Amino acid sequence: KLLFFLNHYPYHDRFCSCVNIFFPSFRVIPSCDPTADDNLYHICITAISVVIMLILAILARRTKAGNKQKGLLGLLSPVNFLDHTQHKGLAVAVFGVLLCKLCGLILSPNPLPFTTDSENKQNWVILGVFYYPALYYPLLACGTLHNKVGYVLGSLLSWTHFSVLVWQKIDCPKTPQIHKYYSLFSSLPQIACLAFLSFQYPLFLFKGLKGTEKNNATEDLSSSYYRDYVKTILKKKAAKISTSSTETPKLPQRIIDAVKSYIYTPEDAFRFPLKLAISCVVAFITLYQVGLLLILTVVPTLQTARAGVDEDIANVLAGFKIILSPDKHEVVRLVVYYMWCVEVCYISALTLSGLVNLAMLMRSMVLHRSNLKGLYRGDIYNVYNCQRSIRASRPALVCWMGYTSFTAAHICIGMLIQAMVFFLCLLIAVFLIIIPVLHGQNLVLFKMLPFWLMILLAVLIQHITARFCFIKKTAGTRDLDNRGNLFLLTYLLFPVNVLIGVLLAIWRIVITALFNIVHMGRTDISLLNRNVEAFDPAYRCYAHYLKIEVSQSHPVMKAFCGMLLQSVSQETNAAQRSRDAEEGIQLVHQEKKQHKVSSAKRARGHWQLLYTLVNNPSLVGTRKHFQRQTAESFVNGSLNRNTKEGSKKEAATKEAEAAASN
Amino acid sequence: KLLFFLNHYPYHDRFCSCVNIFFPSFRVIPSCDPTADDNLYHICITAISVVIMLILAILARRTKAGNKQKGLLGLLSPVNFLDHTQHKGLAVAVFGVLLCKLCGLILSPNPLPFTTDSENKQNWVILGVFYYPALYYPLLACGTLHNKVGYVLGSLLSWTHFSVLVWQKIDCPKTPQIHKYYSLFSSLPQIACLAFLSFQYPLFLFKGLKGTEKNNATEDLSSSYYRDYVKTILKKKAAKISTSSTETPKLPQRIIDAVKSYIYTPEDAFRFPLKLAISCVVAFITLYQVGLLLILTVVPTLQTARAGVDEDIANVLAGFKIILSPDKHEVVRLVVYYMWCVEVCYISALTLSGLVNLAMLMRSMVLHRSNLKGLYRGDIYNVYNCQRSIRASRPALVCWMGYTSFTAAHICIGMLIQAMVFFLCLLIAVFLIIIPVLHGQNLVLFKMLPFWLMILLAVLIQHITARFCFIKKTAGTRDLDNRGNLFLLTYLLFPVNVLIGVLLAIWRIVITALFNIVHMGRTDISLLNRNVEAFDPAYRCYAHYLKIEVSQSHPVMKAFCGMLLQSVSQETNAAQRSRDAEEGIQLVHQEKKQHKVSSAKRARGHWQLLYTLVNNPSLVGTRKHFQRQTAESFVNGSLNRNTKEGSKKEAATKEAEAAASN
Repeated sequence: KLLFFLNHYPYHDRFCSCVNIFFPSFRVIPSCDPTADDNLYHICITAISVVIMLILAILARRTKAGNKQKGLLGLLSPVNFLDHTQHKGLAVAVFGVLLCKLCGLILSPNPLPFTTDSENKQNWVILGVFYYPALYYPLLACGTLHNKVGYVLGSLLSWTHFSVLVWQKIDCPKTPQIHKYYSLFSSLPQIACLAFLSFQYPLFLFKGLKGTEKNNATEDLSSSYYRDYVKTILKKKAAKISTSSTETPKLPQRIIDAVKSYIYTPEDAFRFPLKLAISCVVAFITLYQVGLLLILTVVPTLQTARAGVDEDIANVLAGFKIILSPDKHEVVRLVVYYMWCVEVCYISALTLSGLVNLAMLMRSMVLHRSNLKGLYRGDIYNVYNCQRSIRASRPALVCWMGYTSFTAAHICIGMLIQAMVFFLCLLIAVFLIIIPVLHGQNLVLFKMLPFWLMILLAVLIQHITARFCFIKKTAGTRDLDNRGNLFLLTYLLFPVNVLIGVLLAIWRIVITALFNIVHMGRTDISLLNRNVEAFDPAYRCYAHYLKIEVSQSHPVMKAFCGMLLQSVSQETNAAQRSRDAEEGIQLVHQEKKQHKVSSAKRARGHWQLLYTLVNNPSLVGTRKHFQRQTAESFVNGSLNRNTKEGSKKEAATKEAEAAASN
Repeated sequence: KLLFFLNHYPYHDRFCSCVNIFFPSFRVIPSCDPTADDNLYHICITAISVVIMLILAILARRTKAGNKQKGLLGLLSPVNFLDHTQHKGLAVAVFGVLLCKLCGLILSPNPLPFTTDSENKQNWVILGVFYYPALYYPLLACGTLHNKVGYVLGSLLSWTHFSVLVWQKIDCPKTPQIHKYYSLFSSLPQIACLAFLSFQYPLFLFKGLKGTEKNNATEDLSSSYYRDYVKTILKKKAAKISTSSTETPKLPQRIIDAVKSYIYTPEDAFRFPLKLAISCVVAFITLYQVGLLLILTVVPTLQTARAGVDEDIANVLAGFKIILSPDKHEVVRLVVYYMWCVEVCYISALTLSGLVNLAMLMRSMVLHRSNLKGLYRGDIYNVYNCQRSIRASRPALVCWMGYTSFTAAHICIGMLIQAMVFFLCLLIAVFLIIIPVLHGQNLVLFKMLPFWLMILLAVLIQHITARFCFIKKTAGTRDLDNRGNLFLLTYLLFPVNVLIGVLLAIWRIVITALFNIVHMGRTDISLLNRNVEAFDPAYRCYAHYLKIEVSQSHPVMKAFCGMLLQSVSQETNAAQRSRDAEEGIQLVHQEKKQHKVSSAKRARGHWQLLYTLVNNPSLVGTRKHFQRQTAESFVNGSLNRNTKEGSKKEAATKEAEAAASN
C-alpha cells in the first residue's frame, strides 16, 4: 500500500527526479558469461566426482581384507567428528566451501547452475541444499583411505575445483548482483579453502611416499595427546595448590583478568574437538560473509548518492516544503554533510558489530575450553548450574548433529541485528543529540538541570549518610547506627527514590537490551535468567552438544583405552614373534615362557579390571561386554562412559599413577 | 519537523476536517472549583499538622522520663522498617497515600495547590516531592507514642484528610485533565488508604481505653512470632525427611507445581518484613494507577472517534488516494471495523499486561518468602548463586532505603513497556496476519510450504534416526551406534541445519524479548545471564536489600534476643520485688537467696555464652560488647550478625532446644 501510495502521489514526478538525482551513476553492469561455463563445469565435475567415488569404492573393497577399519564403511564416514587428534584441515576446509556455497545459493537469483528458472527458486534452493554437500563429498572421501591413489585423486579433484573457480573469477570479476565486486569478494573464503585442500592433498601424497604418515585409523587412540593430557592434569594440581591464595584481587587486577578472559591463548595440553574447530572457522566465515553483504549493499549506494547531489536537491526539498537554507549551495552542502554522517554511522556500526562479534568468538573459545575441561573434571554443577547426567540421548544427539550449523546461523542473525541496532542508536545519537547540541537546539536534557541536580543530591545524601551516619564499625563488624534517623530518611526520600527508580528502570532496559544484542551470536551462554536458562534454544543446544562430546571423547577415557589397546597389540606381537622364531623342542620351552609372561599380563589385567570396577560400581552392569579379549571392539564401539564415571576413572587413574610412582 | 510538515502540508485543511470528523464529540469540560478550595485546605491542614507535631513533641518530652524507648527520638522514627511483628497497616496506608499524591504531582499541570504557575512546573514538582512526605508525616507520628492523646489527634487528622478529599471528589467528580473521571478514579486508592487510617486510629484508641493494646516498643522482641518460627523450623525438618523422595516428578505434576509456584498462600510461621509488605501494596497501587492512565487516555478517545465516523471519511481517504470501496457506506463500515479492531487490541494488550503483572507480583511474593527463608537458613549460594557476606554495607544500605520506591518505578515502567509491546504485537498479528488470511491475501507463509516441509522433514529425520539408529541401549547404558552413518548424516545435513538454525535464532530473539518484557517489573530476578547477574541494577538492589533485611532482622536471632531480655526482666523483677518486700534481718537472708538464684542464672548465662562462642568463632572479636549485663543495648542496637552466623546460631539454638527437651 505504501508503494501504491507513492505511485499515486501527486509529487510522483518530483519523487522520481529525486531518485534520479540521488542515484545518477547507476551504471548497468552487463551480466558476464565466464569461458568456463558454470553449467558445463558442474555437469563435468559431478561426473568426475561419481567416477572418483567408484574408484575409491573399488579400492576400499580391495584393501578391506588387510584392515577392518577401512573399506566401504570408512568411505561412508570420511570425518570422525568425535576426534581430538585427527588432522582437522580437510574437514574444516570442506565445511568452509559448503558454507560459502550456501550463501551463494540463498542470495543468487539462480540457485543452481543447471537452470535459469528463477520462478521456482524455492524448489531449486531445496535441491541445492542437498546437492552441494554431495558434490564436495569426494573431497573429504579421498583422504579417508590413507591410500596414495586416494591422495592423487584428491589432489586432482581439488586442483580442478580451485582452478576453475579462480579462472571464473578472473574471467568475470564484475557481476550485476548486489554490487559489482560482491561475487568476487564473497568467493574469497571459498578460494582460500580450496587452495588449502589443493596444497594439503599433495602434502599427504608426499608424506605417504616418504612413509612418514601415520595410520590415522588408530592414530587417535595411540596418540600421545591423551597421555599428555592426563600427565598435565597431574602436574597442574600440584602447582595450583602452592599458588592458591584466599585474597580477593584488586580492581586493576580484576580488569586485567576480565580482558584476559577475552583473549584465547592456545594450550599445549588441550585440543579442541573437531566439531568445535569446524564451528569456529564456520563462524568466522559467516562473520565475513554477513559483514561483506552489509557493507556492499549499502555503502557504495550511499557514496554514489552523495556524489550525485547537486542544486536540484534544493528544489526537490522545497517541493516537500523543507527549506534547509535559502542558499542553494548551502542546501547542497548540508545535504551532503548529513549523508556523510549517515554513512559514517553505518560504517561505524558495522565495524563495531564486527569487532564485538570477533571478541565474542574469542571469548566463546575460551569458554568452550574451560567448559570442556570442567566437564572432564566432573564439575557438572559449575558448567550447567544444575546436576545433569552426561550421557547420549536423543535430543542431545540431534543438538550435537546441528551444533555447527546453529552456530553459523546465530552469528549471522546476531550480526544483522547488531548492525541494525547499533546503526539506529548511532543515528539517534548523532541526529537527535550531537548535531542539535552543536547547533545549540533541542537542549531538553539541559533544561531539566534542576531535576538532575535534585536526583544527584538525593543519591549523594543517601550514600554519604549511609557511609558516615548509619554504619558503625566496631571491633571488625559493621552495624547499623542511628536507626531512627535512617527510618525517617527512608520515609522522607520515598517520592524522590521513585523518580530515581524510573531512571534505574530505564538503565535496566538499556543494559539488558545491549547485553542480549551483543551476545546474540553466542550459543555458549544463555540470554535468560539462571532459573530458565534451558528455555534459550541456543544454550540448550550447546549444553546438549557438550554432553555428547564429553561422554564420547573424554581424553582420560581415551588414554585408558589407548593403553589397553597397546598392551593387547604388544602381547599379540610377542606371541607372533615367538611362534615365528621357535621350532621343535624349543617350542614347548618358549610356550611355557610365553605362558608365564601372558599369565603375568593377565594378572595385571585382572587387577586393572578389579580396580576399575571397585571405583566404578556403575560399570558392573555392563561387565560382560567389557572382557579384556574384546577390548578392541570396546574401544571402537562403546566409549559410553559418562563423565561422572570418567571423572571417577580419572581419579582412579591418578591414584594408580601415584601408586606406580611410589 | 513532522508537525512543521503537517502544518505546511497541501492537504492541511482536509487533515483538519479529518480530525474534526474523528473527534466530533470533544465536549469541553469546565474546570471545576470545589467548595473546599485546595489552596485554603492545604494551608489549614499544614498548620494543623504543625500544631499536632508540637503537641506530640510536648507529650513525648513528658513521657520521656518514664520510658527511654519513646520520647522525641521515637517521634522522629515513626516506622520501624526492620520489624516483622508490628501492625503494618498505618505505614502501608501512609505510603499508599504518598504514592497517589506523587502520581498527581507528576501528571497534574499544577503540581502544588499553592500556585497555578505552570511555567516553572519542574521546580514545583521538586518542592512537592519533599512537601507531601512532610504533610503526611503526622499521620504516622500520631501512632508512635502509643498514647491516647496521640490516637485522638491521629483520628482527627485522618478524618479531616479523608472527609475533605471525599467532599472535593463529590463536589467535582469531573475534571478536564486527561479524562473527565480520571481524577476521581485516580484518587480511589488514596481515599481507601485514608479511610483505613480513619478507621484504624479510633480502633487503637478504643483498644487503648480498654487496655488491651500491647506496648509496641517491646512487642517486637517479646512477640511469640519468633519463637513460633523457631519451633516450626524444628518441626518441619522432621516432616521433610520422611517425605523426601528421589524420584523425578512427571510432566503433569511438574506443570501443577509450576502453576502453584505462582500462587501465594500465606503461612502461619512466616511474616513479611514491613518494607516488603509496603513494597507489595505500593506495587499494586502503581499497577492500578498506570493501568487507569493507559485506559483513560486512549480508549474513550478511540470510542468517541469510532462513534463519529460518517460518510465524509470516504472523501478524506479519497483525498489520500486510498479507496477502500466504491460504496461510501461500505467505507464507513470498514473504517469502523478497523477502529474497533484497534480498540480490541489495545484493551486486550492492557488486560494481558495487567494480568501478567499481577501474576508476577504473586510470584515475587512467593520468591521473596523462599529467598528470605533460604537466607535465614544460610543457603546463600542458592539465593545469590555465589558466596557473599551478609552484612550491612554502604551500597546495601542505600539499596535498602530505596527498595520500595524502586519496586514501584519498575512496575510502572514495566507495565508501560508491556502494554506498548503487546499492543504492537497484537496489531501486527491482527492487521498483517489474521485479517489478510481471512480475506485470502498475503499468504507468504503458505507459499513457502515446500520450504517448511523440507525443514520439518530434516528435523524429523534427525530425531527418528537419533532415536532408532544411532542410540543403542545395552544393559542400562546408552551408547552411540552406527557412528559412520551418524557422521555422514551430520555432514550431509549441514546446510539444512543452517536454515533450521536461522529459525532457532529468531525463536531465541522472540523468547528472550518476551521473557524480559514480561519480567521487566520484577526486581527479584535478574534479566541477565547468571554470570553477570549483578549488572542488572534492579536485581543488584534486591540482593542488597535482602542482605540488610536478613542481617538486621533474623527471626532466630530475634527469638534469642527476646529470650535474653525476658530472663533479664524476670531477674530485675525478682530483685525489685524482694527489695520492696523485705526489710531488717530478713533482708540479709533474702539477699543470700537471691544471690543463689542469680548465680544459677549467671552460670546458665555463662554456659549459653560459651556455647554460642564455640559455635560462632567469628563472634569472639566482638566479645566485649556482648556481655550479658548490656544485653538490652545489644538487642536494640547491634543485631549485626550475618546469616552464616545466624544459621550457625540457629543450629546452636536447635541443639540447645533439643538438649533442653531431653
